[in-house]
Amino acid sequence: MTSGEHDEMDEVLTAAHAAASDWIHGLGTARVAAATDRPPRSTALPEVGVGAAAAFQELVQRAKERATASTGPRYFHYVLGGVTPAALAADWFATALDQVASSAQGSPLAVDLEELATGWLVELFQLGMPEDWTGVFTTGATMANFVGLGAARQWWGDALGVDVAEEGLAGLPRPVVLTSGFVHASVVKSLAMLGIGRASVERFSADNRGALDLDGLAARLEALGEQPMEERGPAIVVATAGEVNAGGFDPIESLADLCEAHGAWLHVDGAFGLFARASESARPLCGGAERADSIATDGHKWLNVPYDCGVAFVRKRSLLARTFRMVADYLPKAGSAAALQRVPANLGPESSRRARALPVFATLLASGRSGVAAMVDEHLRLAVYLANRVRECPDLELLEEPCLNVVPFRLAPAGVRKRDLDALNEAAAAQVLREGLVFVGTTRYRSRVAFRPAIANWRTREADLDLLIECVLRAGDAVLEAERG
Amino acid sequence: MTSGEHDEMDEVLTAAHAAASDWIHGLGTARVAAATDRPPRSTALPEVGVGAAAAFQELVQRAKERATASTGPRYFHYVLGGVTPAALAADWFATALDQVASSAQGSPLAVDLEELATGWLVELFQLGMPEDWTGVFTTGATMANFVGLGAARQWWGDALGVDVAEEGLAGLPRPVVLTSGFVHASVVKSLAMLGIGRASVERFSADNRGALDLDGLAARLEALGEQPMEERGPAIVVATAGEVNAGGFDPIESLADLCEAHGAWLHVDGAFGLFARASESARPLCGGAERADSIATDGHKWLNVPYDCGVAFVRKRSLLARTFRMVADYLPKAGSAAALQRVPANLGPESSRRARALPVFATLLASGRSGVAAMVDEHLRLAVYLANRVRECPDLELLEEPCLNVVPFRLAPAGVRKRDLDALNEAAAAQVLREGLVFVGTTRYRSRVAFRPAIANWRTREADLDLLIECVLRAGDAVLEAERG
Repeated sequence: MTSGEHDEMDEVLTAAHAAASDWIHGLGTARVAAATDRPPRSTALPEVGVGAAAAFQELVQRAKERATASTGPRYFHYVLGGVTPAALAADWFATALDQVASSAQGSPLAVDLEELATGWLVELFQLGMPEDWTGVFTTGATMANFVGLGAARQWWGDALGVDVAEEGLAGLPRPVVLTSGFVHASVVKSLAMLGIGRASVERFSADNRGALDLDGLAARLEALGEQPMEERGPAIVVATAGEVNAGGFDPIESLADLCEAHGAWLHVDGAFGLFARASESARPLCGGAERADSIATDGHKWLNVPYDCGVAFVRKRSLLARTFRMVADYLPKAGSAAALQRVPANLGPESSRRARALPVFATLLASGRSGVAAMVDEHLRLAVYLANRVRECPDLELLEEPCLNVVPFRLAPAGVRKRDLDALNEAAAAQVLREGLVFVGTTRYRSRVAFRPAIANWRTREADLDLLIECVLRAGDAVLEAERG
Repeated sequence: MTSGEHDEMDEVLTAAHAAASDWIHGLGTARVAAATDRPPRSTALPEVGVGAAAAFQELVQRAKERATASTGPRYFHYVLGGVTPAALAADWFATALDQVASSAQGSPLAVDLEELATGWLVELFQLGMPEDWTGVFTTGATMANFVGLGAARQWWGDALGVDVAEEGLAGLPRPVVLTSGFVHASVVKSLAMLGIGRASVERFSADNRGALDLDGLAARLEALGEQPMEERGPAIVVATAGEVNAGGFDPIESLADLCEAHGAWLHVDGAFGLFARASESARPLCGGAERADSIATDGHKWLNVPYDCGVAFVRKRSLLARTFRMVADYLPKAGSAAALQRVPANLGPESSRRARALPVFATLLASGRSGVAAMVDEHLRLAVYLANRVRECPDLELLEEPCLNVVPFRLAPAGVRKRDLDALNEAAAAQVLREGLVFVGTTRYRSRVAFRPAIANWRTREADLDLLIECVLRAGDAVLEAERG
């Protein structure tokens, strides 16, 4: 390498370090929502490059105009989480090392830490896996659901005497997937991707929140049992741990009992809800997940590591190996069990992959089990704090007692007709984002338009929630004022 | 945020910057292969954390022992590429910003730059897309193949009157996928994941390299045309641009003609080979790719951006939208065309995703079209240089004239029997990695064990290739010496 190359690299890394520090230090005070009133700036691919330093400065300028402070303490939409110091540093190092995590041949480090970090997560969540389990790092819970349901698909085919990864789903019946109304869009999307189809999902809801109709689901399993196996195969049951609008849980223990009795597969979608198991007090909400055949969770949500990071836990490695293995003369052999264990590319969707375990390893080592538990407990406490603040405000209506870290509520000021509340809340939500001091989105919950702030960022404090309440109330006033004026 | 939090973040980012610089400065001289003689160090999840600084130092220590210098100039296995200064800085900034690139609501910046960067790649590769095209950032070429073939699956279902993402593949015939022997393992894996099945692939090889038997494939298309459409659906043809053992190309123009004539889908797997189109001299190798219905390529290979980065180009957006859309009340609406364009989560496999476009944008802006072309041309020149060096060595045998950036050769010293050459090359390859000065893997090419160095790192120079030759020759001598001794 020439010294000129060193100089350019040194210069631009110093600039990146400085720009990153500026951004991070500004998170406490910056606008959260980016300006979206101008169209994106589009230019043609330049014929001659501007060099690394100028290109990076252009990126920084664009970020100032168009980035969201979604990693800060006042971002409450979706369920995002921030980035801990240990995770951020480890992710920078992952970029610099740029290990190819497809196999231990490509990077012993990456595979060591994938094994270690997924093992630590099994400890954190008290999942008590059998010897044959596998943890698969994915880009997020969607792909972790895809991995878990991919293993389920292979198992389902085995019951019909078909190797689905090899032969495909041609000529087979459509698998039956049973869920509550809590089922997340990413599970449905995974089924679409796997060729099982969105229409395979049968939802059993007992109320307008989507809570499980356990009897209905049990009856369906009974009825399925009366059909010949070759006409429908065994059922796949998906339990939701952490519904997105109010943090609710399916009764996983009961579903595990049913699955055991009926020979069904149990997949748990615990994108953020699995973290209840890190907390002594909240663990019972997610009891039974340790009995699941496959589990999906996210690292980039409640663990507070950067994108992309999800993990699938599957109890039976061979199902993954048969679904995802790659065979080529220049690649590590897929044959032996030992080889499989050290070749993640044979056990999950990707081939070449980032060393996603590094930030997970670093943040778990930095915080320890007790540190993660304390963060989760603090967020649960903050959710109760927010619910109490909502209850104290006459203009706000709490739509559900928080059971986890999501608090659904709405503006419901005296004097506004019930039928006008949806429009008021929609308009107020847009106004909150225009003001941009906090970021919160709306949903439809119990057939009502509602705010649904989720608390998952290690930086969030009571003052941030006070500001959220203040912004929503101010936005509501502004909307009503404009209507009157 | 408290000042204590600032202090911890500042301290650990400074440590990460320093450790990254050390690693990068050492790339020119470090061992490339990591020590693999010791088992990985495994410990239990600590109850109490050690803090960010100590956790990061533990990571650095483990990296010193177990990381591969795969981002340096002397790593020739797989087809890896390094990381340019602009890409590295932008990726650090992406981590610090931690934007959620699922939608423009989540991050205007991320979506602006995904649109801009995929557009620039279309310019770079001269793909001339219609207005309705979409570029989808994925984790790599495997998932880009998955996206392209997912769109193909949806199109295939349409011909049979079935919405595959909605209804699944139940009860349908198995799609027919036609390829040459060049087809990559990741294409086959994608078909397994999609529920189409590995067995759907029909390979038409004219020789022991796997080169396309065009007449055979054409005859198969003819025969398929005589079957009723509802019994088999239209064919899916996969062309390989850049075979992994010697860099060969299928005749894409001829395949495009055939697909046009027979109403077949054309997918081009151009993980690294698509970059031939960035070079004036090499472009004809990949002629016809601009006629494909879908194309997959990698960013983290020849573009020299960090993991994870792949891109799928699909000519018809609606096929992606129907395959990958997510529907939930708290998510951006999937309905309108405008919304789709700004919601990548509705057009590709992931939901929450890293802002993968940032390093692509930065490196393209830094280098310009001409800079990328110059890098590719330089690698093609180096491949010829390496081939010439091999030819000059009496103990080496060149197995193929390089047409791109992969140079298959083997040790074939006088006095070693032909039937012993495979064992010699296997043993020498292991010895090269034990020495660890260069990293090169073996494959089986034309039924012979062969080295297959690929040149795709912006740092690689002639001296690195001289060292590769030296190491292989020395390893061969050592193996023969040990046999005699």
